[in-house]
Amino acid sequence: MSSRFERVESETKYEGKIFSVVEETFRHEDGEDSTREIVRHQGAVGVVAHDEERIYLVRQPREAIGVPDLLEIPAGKLDVDGEEPLDAAKRELGEEIGKAAEHWELLHSFYTSAGFTDEQCLVYLATGLSNAESEQDVHERIDLETRPLSELDAVIDEVRDAKTLIGLLELRRRL
Amino acid sequence: MSSRFERVESETKYEGKIFSVVEETFRHEDGEDSTREIVRHQGAVGVVAHDEERIYLVRQPREAIGVPDLLEIPAGKLDVDGEEPLDAAKRELGEEIGKAAEHWELLHSFYTSAGFTDEQCLVYLATGLSNAESEQDVHERIDLETRPLSELDAVIDEVRDAKTLIGLLELRRRL
Repeated sequence: MSSRFERVESETKYEGKIFSVVEETFRHEDGEDSTREIVRHQGAVGVVAHDEERIYLVRQPREAIGVPDLLEIPAGKLDVDGEEPLDAAKRELGEEIGKAAEHWELLHSFYTSAGFTDEQCLVYLATGLSNAESEQDVHERIDLETRPLSELDAVIDEVRDAKTLIGLLELRRRL
Repeated sequence: MSSRFERVESETKYEGKIFSVVEETFRHEDGEDSTREIVRHQGAVGVVAHDEERIYLVRQPREAIGVPDLLEIPAGKLDVDGEEPLDAAKRELGEEIGKAAEHWELLHSFYTSAGFTDEQCLVYLATGLSNAESEQDVHERIDLETRPLSELDAVIDEVRDAKTLIGLLELRRRL
């Protein structure tokens, strides 16, 4: 059965720049203890950006998975102290595809892999696009890829990235 | 721009039971090096199971995120040596909700968080359900929760788990 629990032990095993690893023991209501390996992560945002004709996506190298050009929505980590998720989403949209948006709406907020990490990702819908005044970040290896909105189903079939699937499938549900 | 790369250094920083952490350096085609913190994970499977009337979901405590009863599709890690993903999905469906399925189809295979982990998750559609002969796993703290298929949109709005969102949004696209 599902069960309430409290943390009774925590030991930090790794401290990195973008995440840390802890081993923690939890006591459940039935008195049993469970030990879990947990990746603590600050979270991330993603942005489904489209005008009436095109969806704005990016391709970038993802070293962790060995893929040189993963197709994704514009996205980024919540790594600026005190920055609200929506502000991070606006910043990433400017940095990655050079756009600003008039309308913003939260589509989904979700845990990326609840069994081992507390990472949450918030995916927004951005419409009413215009060219951003802010400069694109020249240090990121990111290619813009626009696709016709009419090909949304074909794009969904291609996508291998969780936040991008969630964002585009939710867009599909609303269109 | 997107870029091919090769790994030039790898150092293991943590070895757990369900994942390990490495710090790796990659050399890009332009000669620049990038260092990445990476969680190596064996991957997971999830199952969207429904008959014509009901969707079969589970609730379980997820200590990593501090939630006692996260709503999810039946799922599990690829942690049995040599087991194929589809066989793992069949096993989890039996263990978690006591069902077998006549028809199986892969809905999506995706990276859960490509920036920092190589974890892949395969989500299947299982239909033609019957009661499984295998025993449910009594050691798992899992509650079955069935919901009317007619309430699929409301369920999607509730879900906070990535693989479950992807599975149910894909089901919604197909119905």
